Amino acid sequence: MREEFIKPLSDDQRLDWLRLIRCENVGPVVFRQLLERFGNPAAALKALPDLARRAGSKRQIRLCAPAEAEAEAKAARKAGARLVALCEPAYPALLRALDDAPPILSVLGSLEALARPCVGIVGARNASANGRRMAERLAAEIAEGGYTVASGMARGVDTAAHRGALPQPTVAVLAGGADVVYPPENDALHAEIQTAGAVISEMPLGTVPQARHFPRRNRLISGLSLGVVVVEAAQRSGSLITARFAGDQGREVFAVPGSPLDPRARGCNHLLRDGATLTESAADVLSVLGAMRPPGGPPSPAPDSLDQADPPAPEPGDAERVLIEELLGAEPILVDDVVRQSALPIAVVHGVLLELELAGRAERHPGNRFARLYKAPANPL
Amino acid sequence: MREEFIKPLSDDQRLDWLRLIRCENVGPVVFRQLLERFGNPAAALKALPDLARRAGSKRQIRLCAPAEAEAEAKAARKAGARLVALCEPAYPALLRALDDAPPILSVLGSLEALARPCVGIVGARNASANGRRMAERLAAEIAEGGYTVASGMARGVDTAAHRGALPQPTVAVLAGGADVVYPPENDALHAEIQTAGAVISEMPLGTVPQARHFPRRNRLISGLSLGVVVVEAAQRSGSLITARFAGDQGREVFAVPGSPLDPRARGCNHLLRDGATLTESAADVLSVLGAMRPPGGPPSPAPDSLDQADPPAPEPGDAERVLIEELLGAEPILVDDVVRQSALPIAVVHGVLLELELAGRAERHPGNRFARLYKAPANPL
Repeated sequence: MREEFIKPLSDDQRLDWLRLIRCENVGPVVFRQLLERFGNPAAALKALPDLARRAGSKRQIRLCAPAEAEAEAKAARKAGARLVALCEPAYPALLRALDDAPPILSVLGSLEALARPCVGIVGARNASANGRRMAERLAAEIAEGGYTVASGMARGVDTAAHRGALPQPTVAVLAGGADVVYPPENDALHAEIQTAGAVISEMPLGTVPQARHFPRRNRLISGLSLGVVVVEAAQRSGSLITARFAGDQGREVFAVPGSPLDPRARGCNHLLRDGATLTESAADVLSVLGAMRPPGGPPSPAPDSLDQADPPAPEPGDAERVLIEELLGAEPILVDDVVRQSALPIAVVHGVLLELELAGRAERHPGNRFARLYKAPANPL
Repeated sequence: MREEFIKPLSDDQRLDWLRLIRCENVGPVVFRQLLERFGNPAAALKALPDLARRAGSKRQIRLCAPAEAEAEAKAARKAGARLVALCEPAYPALLRALDDAPPILSVLGSLEALARPCVGIVGARNASANGRRMAERLAAEIAEGGYTVASGMARGVDTAAHRGALPQPTVAVLAGGADVVYPPENDALHAEIQTAGAVISEMPLGTVPQARHFPRRNRLISGLSLGVVVVEAAQRSGSLITARFAGDQGREVFAVPGSPLDPRARGCNHLLRDGATLTESAADVLSVLGAMRPPGGPPSPAPDSLDQADPPAPEPGDAERVLIEELLGAEPILVDDVVRQSALPIAVVHGVLLELELAGRAERHPGNRFARLYKAPANPL
């Protein structure tokens, strides 16, 4: 996103942003593609039904009605939350650089905490007493070092990290709505974090978190942060997912070593094998981050333009749609492979995939891959 | 050492080896240089008084009398120990490759254990219960993998490593005489190790270990081994000295991670930062060692010849002796620097340094450095 496109929105413009991201089959990546193609959310909203229809959607795509978006914005105001769009100056700069940055964040608390560079601290829910102590100490010292500590407000390490950072700024990134406290015993912590920092979410207020929301939330903790510290984590744990996101996003990964006899150390030791920075104290984190140049310049994966449309891409024809849909299967396939196997221009492939996604006939997977979505056979009545 | 010089010695020849290494100011490196220069220990013994005198030794260098060496050999036989010389086939091949390999090892127990490839397992004396368990488990599995476990029979990790390896072969390398049990509670272990493996030492039987013997002993544990595993070690501990020797000797270094809150994990975590292989189980060790080519070929630091003299080096004159002694100071200096600053041929510098060392006027330091030894002012009476 070019600097000149970072600017505050009017309330009406922000409502259009909100409407577009709340439409059926529109996720952050599709949102950004629509913005690239149509220049602004209002234009994209107009084009949406036609795009979905072209890819063969039998029924009308469900758009978010203006009244729905207005109701969400009103509820946010009432809860004291601010909605911040991706293009606005208050939006966290590092997060904005992600391909799949949320177009709208809801923020409870102070925006200043989000303006400081962040360090994620995550780990096991069933952390040991030592793990909690370690998380608390690291968080306190990293916060003293001038960083906002980001975590997920889960039990165990996350809770200890927020507690350790307080009363300095800390940011809780929630999987459900920013106002939905989980686990329930963190009610007081939820309030304290808002006083000293912020609670944020990409989900509408009031959303009860589901299992599938947690990995998506984890990409935001790492995406917000210059680096992520993992303190105790089992193999195949959410913390390792966060660490993987951090690696994919080009963030630093730090891990606290532990005894191989403790299953809660397996994940961290695994990360250390894979090249994570061995972390015994906050100094290990601060020295690496202090030596980094502040991430600057235009983030490469961002679109060139948001408020002015690109030159129109060639319109895909029916033959191309059929060919590309045939190439997709239940197993996700790389977009590069679709381009190669179809021998079509890359812009055409992207255009068709966007339409298929909007029509609910294809699903985007991590790593720029797509799978075909097979509908259950329709009831003949 | 070329293959053709590895051969069993007669008892008389072995006595000469023993005499030479027991002479005043003769350590393993000087021993090897004398061997290179004079072809065999008997010839070196003859030349020794003259060499020491040339460097200005005021009094006669103390040689080891034949009767003394015979008494040591007899005591060894009585204790059931074998004396093995560096050039004999039973001498451990990896150890032989060291610049400062002991010319004579005394061995209690079986020589077969020393013929198998070894893995060192070392660590804290005050190890935690977990550390001991880890050492025991690693040792058992590494021994099952076909390696002899080498350690130092100290309290804590060392004891657990020997116990874990038994009844499979394990080698204890002692700082004092091979027959001097330390700590005393390891009396039974000392006996068991001899049954299944060996207890070895470069010191004469009966030697009570002194503090300064321990670091020298540590170089033998690493020197014997393809790799050394460190299980719990504080900063500035003997285990880290062993790990440093292992690194200098080109051996693999493995370290078991631990919580930064435990001071006994600091040394291991430090090694991991420095590139040691993170070790959670024996498989981590076995896979690295299994992938290594067996160390073969002539070890580079070994002399070209043992039983036939090199062409005689140019005899250093008095002017050269004075010049070189002047270049040495209380602070150890690199031999390379002595060569550069003296502008003398390298063989001459080595010759003078050998003489000075034998005369007790210079002291060899690690890293091929020498310092001048200043005598306390002589009593004018």
